[in-house]
Amino acid sequence: MTTHRVHNFGAGPSTLPLPVLEEVRDELVDYRGSGMSLLEMSHRGDHYDAVHTEAMRLAREVFALPDDFDVLFLQGGATLQFSMVPANLLTDGASAAIVRTGSWSRKALADARAYGDTYVAWDGANGQFTRTPTDDELQLRPDTRYLHVCSNETIEGLRFPEFPDAGVPLVADMSSDIATRELPWERFDVVYGGAQKNLGPAGMAVVFLRRATLGTMRQDQGAYLRYGIHADKDSLYNTPPVFSIWVTGKVLRWIRDSGGLKAMTAAAERRAGTVYEAIDSSDGFYRCPVEPHSRSLTNVVFQLPDTEAEAAFLDAAREQQFVGLRGHRSVGGCRASLYNAMPQDGADALATFMDDFRRRAS
Amino acid sequence: MTTHRVHNFGAGPSTLPLPVLEEVRDELVDYRGSGMSLLEMSHRGDHYDAVHTEAMRLAREVFALPDDFDVLFLQGGATLQFSMVPANLLTDGASAAIVRTGSWSRKALADARAYGDTYVAWDGANGQFTRTPTDDELQLRPDTRYLHVCSNETIEGLRFPEFPDAGVPLVADMSSDIATRELPWERFDVVYGGAQKNLGPAGMAVVFLRRATLGTMRQDQGAYLRYGIHADKDSLYNTPPVFSIWVTGKVLRWIRDSGGLKAMTAAAERRAGTVYEAIDSSDGFYRCPVEPHSRSLTNVVFQLPDTEAEAAFLDAAREQQFVGLRGHRSVGGCRASLYNAMPQDGADALATFMDDFRRRAS
Repeated sequence: MTTHRVHNFGAGPSTLPLPVLEEVRDELVDYRGSGMSLLEMSHRGDHYDAVHTEAMRLAREVFALPDDFDVLFLQGGATLQFSMVPANLLTDGASAAIVRTGSWSRKALADARAYGDTYVAWDGANGQFTRTPTDDELQLRPDTRYLHVCSNETIEGLRFPEFPDAGVPLVADMSSDIATRELPWERFDVVYGGAQKNLGPAGMAVVFLRRATLGTMRQDQGAYLRYGIHADKDSLYNTPPVFSIWVTGKVLRWIRDSGGLKAMTAAAERRAGTVYEAIDSSDGFYRCPVEPHSRSLTNVVFQLPDTEAEAAFLDAAREQQFVGLRGHRSVGGCRASLYNAMPQDGADALATFMDDFRRRAS
Repeated sequence: MTTHRVHNFGAGPSTLPLPVLEEVRDELVDYRGSGMSLLEMSHRGDHYDAVHTEAMRLAREVFALPDDFDVLFLQGGATLQFSMVPANLLTDGASAAIVRTGSWSRKALADARAYGDTYVAWDGANGQFTRTPTDDELQLRPDTRYLHVCSNETIEGLRFPEFPDAGVPLVADMSSDIATRELPWERFDVVYGGAQKNLGPAGMAVVFLRRATLGTMRQDQGAYLRYGIHADKDSLYNTPPVFSIWVTGKVLRWIRDSGGLKAMTAAAERRAGTVYEAIDSSDGFYRCPVEPHSRSLTNVVFQLPDTEAEAAFLDAAREQQFVGLRGHRSVGGCRASLYNAMPQDGADALATFMDDFRRRAS
């Protein structure tokens, strides 16, 4: 029997690879003949240890992570990282530079201020968040410890097509485009992202950390908030989020077996290109407010001529089993999120639907 | 076909109710005909909203939570609560009193020190952690904001048979006996516990919070670390740990349908009684170091005459499909963890095995 599947364009949590879901289902109750679910097993035992180690190994392999970086699997999503990054990195006399490109970098900025001297290195608010800056637009102070960027703003639908090369270490929140692109690791001290869009279920952030930074980190927080403690214990200081790590490991294997990050990038470009083409060829019926160079590959935002047309579009889409196309409540409009597990079929079907809807509406 | 199940005495993650696991398996790939897994759905959508709201409602019902308490579902387990409790409650000029009864309260103490004035109100280290104190042994300073207790020390196998009535608000870490006993709510400001022993899978803490305390909380941390933000948003400030909340809701329903906390207490007393009886009737072959009044109902620790006998016991147990009986690596010995989902059968089988092993060894 074929599994009933809708086209899921939700911004996250979102589509997971069907073979991964089916494997989880099949292994859920009795894990490999052990007489227990993996959910019931000690995180210090052999079965879980193999799962944990393999997920870490696959993360290193898929991301081509240099040896001098650690992989951490932490709870609290990217939101807790908004606190952990400055609570660890922002030492006395140093400052954090934040590029404000949209809603998520605004949250990172607000949280960083609780931990030390923080400033805005470039502000996209004046341009209503429609592009990312060029390197020469960044205004950096000499005491800057790191430059924080949100590589892809999920809500505004824009991204850094290239990461800044700014002469200070980068920290990147990649929650909505992690595992969709290769990274110039030499520029980064920390890369983090919630798992629930491209990597697995909600309940975890993956954090990549340059090991040399551990020596100069602040130690004035409780244990869970200190990177050094998790790095020392391979993310087993306390009970890890077993299910999230288990499923993320399977998704990482699926990514590797699908051709790795190069293939993910190619697929992302093709999917997004299909939907942007439907927008750009619509004679202005659909409109993407983001400047072409900064358009996101994972979150395509677009508007229709008016809110009435948008409501009719979303209703018609739902009837055709297109799910999750409503834009974020803070900005309105429409949004098609196209993460790694979205097949090209989904983008094709959406583009066809958009063309048809436009013709009927004209 | 009957599902193969071992007797799982692991300290956590540990046994979940089999019907819950089977229900999760059956619903995992296509959630109620939606064409999506619940793991793939927006946490702002109707399906997830119903799951979230119902889990919160069941938590209120099962715990007989007074209306002036909030329920929070937070990531990071009890370990993150070791930081969050003092980071929110420990205002200038106030101090935190910690009862040191074993390994977990020691960790809570160490983390609290990062956030303010913290002292030990009673120290069980001199007695090698073999009992909890009486109320008149507690030494409290007048500036005490709260008294923190670990209601059940998982590693040392001891518990507070009654919660202190100390004239200051209590904060309790109940990670290993949450949902096994009714609570005198009037004494508490905060009760928290990791879900992974009695309530669900790893990846979440359940936090009960007296609402009136929100007005006097510190605001000097990032958003994820502030109780007020989660309380305002019903634990939907950021993407919640969907799977953990979903399964915990099912376990809460199973608890309610099994008779609620009164039934859980009765079952816990009977299970633990069965194993303690095997210890106490063994003519000293098995020995529990904990004073009888403070013995845990969920973590029965015991020693054999020597480490050789212990190794033989653990080997024989494993052969008989008794899993997870090795004591924590920091204290050695043996430990049988008996959480809510452990059937009485498991305790009976263990007691029989212990009797048989002793006879063979004598």
